[in-house]
Amino acid sequence: MKVRHYEQVQQESVDMDGAEQCSIRWLIGPDDGAPNFAMRQFDVAVEGHTPKHTHPYEHEVFVLEGSGVVLHGETERPLQRGDVVFVAPNEVHQFRNTGDVPLKFLCLVPNVACS
Amino acid sequence: MKVRHYEQVQQESVDMDGAEQCSIRWLIGPDDGAPNFAMRQFDVAVEGHTPKHTHPYEHEVFVLEGSGVVLHGETERPLQRGDVVFVAPNEVHQFRNTGDVPLKFLCLVPNVACS
Repeated sequence: MKVRHYEQVQQESVDMDGAEQCSIRWLIGPDDGAPNFAMRQFDVAVEGHTPKHTHPYEHEVFVLEGSGVVLHGETERPLQRGDVVFVAPNEVHQFRNTGDVPLKFLCLVPNVACS
Repeated sequence: MKVRHYEQVQQESVDMDGAEQCSIRWLIGPDDGAPNFAMRQFDVAVEGHTPKHTHPYEHEVFVLEGSGVVLHGETERPLQRGDVVFVAPNEVHQFRNTGDVPLKFLCLVPNVACS
């Protein structure tokens, strides 16, 4: 068993093409022996966003703080604390901070996304 | 893509042996087409607890509100908002509310736990 506060986990910049002012913490992942899926925590600064992209695996997202939108193709859906987002494999998506404080969310992925 | 607030999801009592004053919401699961793992949200009332048990799959947990402890075998670890817990397969564990408000956490499991 491993117990830690999420802010104790090192924060890394997300340098992927299309990402602006995003950072990630790998809260639980393959390095912990997690056999199936990984828990990451994203911080998106004011006016920042994740890449608009698609991939063959899902996201399971929970919004912790802040507000923003998630793009689903060309459609925007508002996001607030406590919202849950299931992004199915191969869906075009992007998370954007439209508020005035950091947008923080959990985003879990299957281990196939970790290599 | 599916977007919903967690409180919109129906809450069900956890009737498993050893559970006291626990409820669960299945935020994302096989019914949504989630291919690999499920996101559930637990509420444990004051003085309540989950079963002390073990199973052959992991938990990935994030504490949303409240305070309590997680038992790891016979050892208690304190829990507060923002804490992350990785319970490896076959580890004995139990979540207990030791505070004076509901203990709320996310607990994700691989789909093998959903059948």
